Amino acid sequence: MTDRAPEDLVRQLAFLNEADRLKSVERATTLNDGSRQENSGEHSWHVALYAMVLDGQAEPDVRLDRVIKMLLLHDLVEIDAGDNPIHAPTSDPAQQALAEKTAADRIFGLLPEAQAIEFRALWNEFEAAESPDARFAKAMDRVQPLQTNLALDGKLWEMHGVTEEQIRRRVGNPISKGARTLWDHLSAKLATHFAVKS
Amino acid sequence: MTDRAPEDLVRQLAFLNEADRLKSVERATTLNDGSRQENSGEHSWHVALYAMVLDGQAEPDVRLDRVIKMLLLHDLVEIDAGDNPIHAPTSDPAQQALAEKTAADRIFGLLPEAQAIEFRALWNEFEAAESPDARFAKAMDRVQPLQTNLALDGKLWEMHGVTEEQIRRRVGNPISKGARTLWDHLSAKLATHFAVKS
Repeated sequence: MTDRAPEDLVRQLAFLNEADRLKSVERATTLNDGSRQENSGEHSWHVALYAMVLDGQAEPDVRLDRVIKMLLLHDLVEIDAGDNPIHAPTSDPAQQALAEKTAADRIFGLLPEAQAIEFRALWNEFEAAESPDARFAKAMDRVQPLQTNLALDGKLWEMHGVTEEQIRRRVGNPISKGARTLWDHLSAKLATHFAVKS
Repeated sequence: MTDRAPEDLVRQLAFLNEADRLKSVERATTLNDGSRQENSGEHSWHVALYAMVLDGQAEPDVRLDRVIKMLLLHDLVEIDAGDNPIHAPTSDPAQQALAEKTAADRIFGLLPEAQAIEFRALWNEFEAAESPDARFAKAMDRVQPLQTNLALDGKLWEMHGVTEEQIRRRVGNPISKGARTLWDHLSAKLATHFAVKS
């Protein structure tokens, strides 16, 4: 539990104002109707809803409340470090990782100390993608844009010259690690999509 | 837990695709920098983050996981019924309430039955604003646009001709019912804002 002391509250409200800027970070993915780029704020809502709806696809030891917290926080570093698209990643991963760590220091550092430590630990866990909770959260973060691509009949994949093999490696692997039965279903849809296209 | 049966999964993914449309519902509020209208998808993310950060302001019996679920779902009916701005509400509240109920029937009805019932119950509880969880969730839903208005030095209030008394009634009441200490803090900020303006 956080403190009710006014000084802590001032810091919390400043953090929440800063978080507003995530709504201005554009992703490579569009909305499902292709009308505009998606931003990282609305994406964060959608993946949290994915976790809530697809909870039954998680391993039995996964704690949904922790998964949702990770997903609400997972992209905040992009306020400083920008989005790093999965199909057009930065040419300098070490530089990107450093930028994200620096961003995490600054942004979570706006919070009262105990909460900054708690939120940073959740973000670190998500990034490491090793715990059952983080693996399910990562799977949700990959399923949502896959669904958008399928809704758009692969238009974004075509635009970026992405192959089925690349999707299976970059998107399929993290999904199957966190939600195997879900991936079996999506893998079949993907195969059908590319069979029709080829 | 939801079922892993493929038919249920197909319904869940259809629901999640439909939810994407919430990103195209515009609210009366803008981003904190005033650059554009906020949409109800990114708003839903932001208020869930508000609950996570301000959890310590809730009454001791409030369950944060249920509050966050309510906030992730609370605006989905707007896909069909549109946003109903607090400072420029519809002239026909009964018609709006009916439109929202019809929307809830259709949208939650996309889900497998057990999950449809669960989500609808959470939405009903939020709308009733009587349980401690729902009162805290409602408070978060009101605090976030209040913060935006303060960040914009009251520009949106001026545009819509909103008085301090109206803000205290429409926004202050629900906040104080769910998070009294938080409201004491914001009430003082509001008084200062209008003292300077007058």
